Parts: sequence; structure tokens; C-alpha cells
Amino acid sequence: MQNLIIHAQTKIVMLIMDGLGGLPRQPGGNTELETAHTPNLDALAECSSLGLTIPVAPGITPGSGPGHLAIFGYDPLQHEIGRGAMEALGVDFDLGPDDLSARGNFCTVDTDGRITDRRAGRIGTDINQELARLLETIRIEGAEIFIEPVKEHRFAFIMRSPGLQDVLSDTDPQKTGIAPLPVQALDPGSEKAARFVNQFITSTRKLLADKHPVNMILLRGFAKLPILPTYQEKYGLNAAAIALNGMYRGVARLVGMQVLNVEGNTLSDEFLTLEKNWGDFDFFYLHVKKTDTFGELGDFDGKVNAIEEVDTLLPRLLALKPDVVIVGGDHSSPSVLKSHSWHPVPMLLYSPYIRADGLVEFGERACTHGSLGTLPATHIMPIALANALRITKYGA
Amino acid sequence: MQNLIIHAQTKIVMLIMDGLGGLPRQPGGNTELETAHTPNLDALAECSSLGLTIPVAPGITPGSGPGHLAIFGYDPLQHEIGRGAMEALGVDFDLGPDDLSARGNFCTVDTDGRITDRRAGRIGTDINQELARLLETIRIEGAEIFIEPVKEHRFAFIMRSPGLQDVLSDTDPQKTGIAPLPVQALDPGSEKAARFVNQFITSTRKLLADKHPVNMILLRGFAKLPILPTYQEKYGLNAAAIALNGMYRGVARLVGMQVLNVEGNTLSDEFLTLEKNWGDFDFFYLHVKKTDTFGELGDFDGKVNAIEEVDTLLPRLLALKPDVVIVGGDHSSPSVLKSHSWHPVPMLLYSPYIRADGLVEFGERACTHGSLGTLPATHIMPIALANALRITKYGA
Repeated sequence: MQNLIIHAQTKIVMLIMDGLGGLPRQPGGNTELETAHTPNLDALAECSSLGLTIPVAPGITPGSGPGHLAIFGYDPLQHEIGRGAMEALGVDFDLGPDDLSARGNFCTVDTDGRITDRRAGRIGTDINQELARLLETIRIEGAEIFIEPVKEHRFAFIMRSPGLQDVLSDTDPQKTGIAPLPVQALDPGSEKAARFVNQFITSTRKLLADKHPVNMILLRGFAKLPILPTYQEKYGLNAAAIALNGMYRGVARLVGMQVLNVEGNTLSDEFLTLEKNWGDFDFFYLHVKKTDTFGELGDFDGKVNAIEEVDTLLPRLLALKPDVVIVGGDHSSPSVLKSHSWHPVPMLLYSPYIRADGLVEFGERACTHGSLGTLPATHIMPIALANALRITKYGA
Repeated sequence: MQNLIIHAQTKIVMLIMDGLGGLPRQPGGNTELETAHTPNLDALAECSSLGLTIPVAPGITPGSGPGHLAIFGYDPLQHEIGRGAMEALGVDFDLGPDDLSARGNFCTVDTDGRITDRRAGRIGTDINQELARLLETIRIEGAEIFIEPVKEHRFAFIMRSPGLQDVLSDTDPQKTGIAPLPVQALDPGSEKAARFVNQFITSTRKLLADKHPVNMILLRGFAKLPILPTYQEKYGLNAAAIALNGMYRGVARLVGMQVLNVEGNTLSDEFLTLEKNWGDFDFFYLHVKKTDTFGELGDFDGKVNAIEEVDTLLPRLLALKPDVVIVGGDHSSPSVLKSHSWHPVPMLLYSPYIRADGLVEFGERACTHGSLGTLPATHIMPIALANALRITKYGA
């Protein structure tokens, strides 16, 4: 498709409500989205094409990484973002091509070096921060180390050095009673990385000796960021991302979007960022986190309210007169399941050139009857680009 | 998907009405399924997701083997069950990994050895059985021979010996006036098999010399069973099959299901087998043959009645409180066509986590409006497993 991309003076907005898809409280009832009072989304739905997106494959529940890659137009089975990389992105660390990352735990081992607590009693985040600064004092010749505290005992480990590869075994045996494992290179290209990480762990042990209950670390999910064609290369789009959480900012950065600074931490602040930067980009990804948060908490009403908040702000987006608007999600998070799920995700696509379905509601059942049908999430971007008149004819 | 499978205490039932999909007697009328009075299926449909399955590919009419492989979750274009193997499965022969099978005909040749009747005047099945016992007296050094009578002039030929391969030409030239062909190995690995089978045919000719009208045999469709990952390996399921006909029992055995013994030969006996074994398995495949039989006979009303019989028994299945229920077919067999057909097959999927479509009828047109849409039959198992909470999240 890449060679069919043409330039146009059109703007696309992709509004992603994380974990949007839901389920009714009782079989046969309304989902969160169907329950929410959404006059603005409903009005937009009436002049849009509706459908349901499948992020990865039928029956497969996507993590946030695969869910976002898919809606951004990248096959999530082809491009994997490893656990360690997701952890680093989650704390907004700007991972580069020389960075090897892992998910880290502060833990407790006994005098024989055997793990007694994989989470060191879930130490406070303040102690975590202190220990992280301490570990960053370790010097490995030829490498830089970053320890980014997450919550309680968890941190993101990043080692920066040219030529580090990520085909490495975990040090975390995922159980107590045995010693942390040394990192092993699982292919020859990763031997330098294994040597460097093991060197770091040795220094760590000495440095943490008197920091009870913490006296050791565990690392798992070693990963570098995959290298993806950027939105500029793939779609010819000068794209911007508006998101409050690091993980989504990170995935957006990965596909070459410019991550905009949001002043404040409300959804309204995100919309203000959209308004302020409207003239400078031709694609905007705007991420809404709360829908997923409430879904995962099992809070049906909370998710309904989060959707209603989006509805209230939608007129500000439409006032900018975007040429194409996508409203959808990266996956479903039904509050009755308290987790991500496999259910196809409601989606609407508005443009002046759409064949409007005339369905007067934005909801799961309405989307079932939409003209886009149930389609792979990766199909959305090509359809949006076409509606933005940014794809030329294929063949003579 | 295999590495995302998790264990759960949930049960799935797959109720397959063979050749379920149909056509109206007159364009615009009701199909067999739409004509049938099915209050129980309709009530289940109302709280299910509906759709239409495509077993092989659009426009392709599947045989029973590919139709079943597809609904079981195996790509029928990747895994082929050869003609000879289907014949052996059809008589409930327990084909093993050392077994080479073929479809056989008793035939008549003239004094020059040229075929005059490929079916030897369609001899009675009793004569067939007698001759089959006779042919089993032939001894081939290093191999065992099984001749399983089918109907009239047809039999299944099975040769058991390690290292037999099935890339062999037919002996049946499919026309009269020329002699049966010797079997030829079409790859070097199949030379042993060719030698053994030709040896067998030579002995056959002598043994049948005075059995007029039969004095020769024809073999075609040499095949071994493909080796497939089992339901345990692929889905983590302890699966059982309930079917009266050998072919379906055989395909189920091929994918590692335990084939249950049905006492009696009615559909009610099949449901009784389900009830008796309910505690011992977490997946049940229950096969209904009559729908296809009447479809192939062109008996519209007979097929309607067969569907109504299933509907009457359905409450016994639901009383077991399965977590997930699939009701569908392996292919269509419209009675107006008197044969299998390419038409997508009606399907319903019930679980507590389904987004119910609220369609109040189980029929071809209702399924067209279902939220599962028209989908490859191979997608059904992943969706069923997801609904049984047996697939974990993909990616972080």
C-alpha cells in the first residue's frame, strides 16, 4: 500500500477509548457503551460507517501493546513488543535502538542466596526510588544503566550500549527456594548483553547487601524495541499522539508519532492539547485511559461515566472540522470480566465520503449492523486514509 | 495460539447437524431449518451469537472429511484425509500410523485381462463379505492385510507394515476395455508399498479366478492418515466424540478425541451417552447424521423432521449446564440439490460471556444478521475456547 500513498491537505483524528468494548451486566442487557448517555457519539454514528474490530485474531485477548499496534495498522503477530520494553515505555522512558530493557523486581534471598520473597515484602515506592538511584551508580565499562522505579518492588531496567541483543533467558525463576539464575544468551548475538547484565547483577548483590529486606534483584522479559516503519514512511502522515500514560506514549513514539506534552492530567487537558496543536499535524491519536481502568476494576458505572465524559468533550474535537474521525478501542475490557477480553471492539468511521449507515446509536449491537462489518483492526487505517483522499488508484 | 491455552473447569459441547445448511424449495421460501418448528433452538439462539461458517473457501463444497476438520479447527487445505483413509474410517476401522488404505472394487475382466465391468454387476454385500474373508487369507511377508466390506462391490483395503508410504498411482483406470494398472510408486519412499500391493494383487487374481462375476479387484485413493496435533495438544481439551457413523468417529479419533461407545443407534441414545459421560470430559462433539442423509436424498420434509428431532432433545443437553454450546454443521446439504453444497452453514454460539444478538430464530437468514458474521469454520474453536475462559492474553 505504501507506494499508493499521496499527499492531501486533510486531517484524521483517531480517538481511542482503551478497552472500549464491553458486555452487559446480565445476558441480554446493555453494555457499558450502550448504557452510557452519548448524544454526541450517537449523532456522529448516524452519519458514519460502523463496525467491530478484531485486534489480533478471533478469540484472542490482546495486551495493550498488540491492541495498539493493530489499530495503528501494524500486524501484532508480526511485530512483538516484549515485556521489558512495555515496562520501560510504561514509565515514559524514551527507549532508543541501543537500549535493552527488562522488567525488574527487588527481592529477598537467604544466606545461601535462595529467593525467600520475590517481591521483598512489596517495599514502598519511596524505598524503591532510593534503591534505584543507588543501582544507577554501578558502572559497566561500555554501557549506560537506567533504573526506572515503577510501583512497590517493581522497576524498569534499561542498559544502553551498541550491539546488545535481547535473546536472553530470565534471571527470575518465578518461584522461591532457589537462587536467581544467571542470564544466558540464547543466541550467539546476545552474548555481549548476557555478559554485561551478569556483571551488573554481581555489582547489585554487593550494593544491596545491607538494604534489608531487599538484597537482590530479579530481571525478566528482556526486550529491545522492534523497529517499525514510521507513520511518515508508511502513511505519509505527520502524526501526533496525545496520551497521559507512558505505555501509550511509548507505542505511539515507536511508530514515529510526535508525542505531545499534555499540561495537566485530565481528558479535558488532552482535548486542549489537540486544539492547541491542530495546525501542526495531519493525524492525531488521542488516548482515553479511564474506560479500561474501570473495566479492569469491574466498575460498570465508572466505565459508563468515563464514556459519557468523552461524549461531553466530543464537540470540541468536531469543532476543529477534521476530515476523518475514527472512534474505537484497542481491545474490549468488559467490567463483568474485570480484564481485557477477546470481544470485537465497537468502531465508527466518519468522513464526508462515507456511506453512512444511518444507525442512530454508537454501541456494540449497532456496530454489529454497521457496513464495516467485523473486520481486522489493521484494516482501519487504510480505510481512514482512503477517506482522507490519501491513497491513489492501484493499477491502470 | 497453542501457547496461550490455559486450563479451566469449563465444558464445551459442539452439536453438529451434518449438512445442516439448506435452501428453500422455491426461491424466496424457507429453508429446511427455517421450516422446522424449533422452539428450543430458537430460544437458545436468542441468547447466543449467530453466524454462518465457511468450511473450506467461498464457493467450495466440502466433503465430510474437510468439513469436519474445519469445524474442529484444522485448516482442511493444509490437512488432507485421502479417499482410501476415509473409506477405512467409514467402516470404523481403527487406522494406525503403519496402515496404508485404499478404496477397493470387486470387478470383472475378460480373458485378456481387460476390464468389462468395474463393479462386477454390483454383487450383493453378502458375496462381498465372503470374498473379503477369502482375500484376507493372502499372506504377504512382513505385512498384514485387512479387507473391510462396504456395500455391494465396494471394500476398504488396508495393508499394515512399518514404512509404507502412500504416494502411489491407482490400479483403477476408471474405464472399461483396458487392463487394471499396476501400482506405481510416485516417489522413492513409496516403493516398498508399491511392491507389496502388487504382490497382493497377483495373489488376488489367482484366488478370484473362479468367483464369477468377480475375477479381479481395483484399488484407488491410496492414503495414510495425516498426523494432526490432538485436541489435548492443540487446545488442552480432554475431548470425547459421540457419533453413530464410522467416518465421523474416525475423524474424531484422528484429532485425539476419545470415541464413546453408543448403546443403540438412535439420536436419543447419543444424548444418553452424553449424559452418562458428562463428568469425564471437558469437550463433547455430538454428531447428527440424518440431516445430511435426507438432504442428499432430496427429502425436504425428512430433513425438517430430523432437525425437529434434535430440537426435541436439546433440553437434555442444556440441562447438563455446559459453559459453551456450539450448534452448527460441517457443510450444507440442501435437499433441492440432493448433495453437499458450498453454502455457508448456520451456527450459533452460546456462553455467559457472549454478546447475545437477540435474534429470535435459528435459521439461515437470522444467522446472516448475527454478530459472528460469515466466518471461516476454523475460527469457531478459538472463539469457543475464549468463551470457555481457556485462552490467556496475547502480549503485554
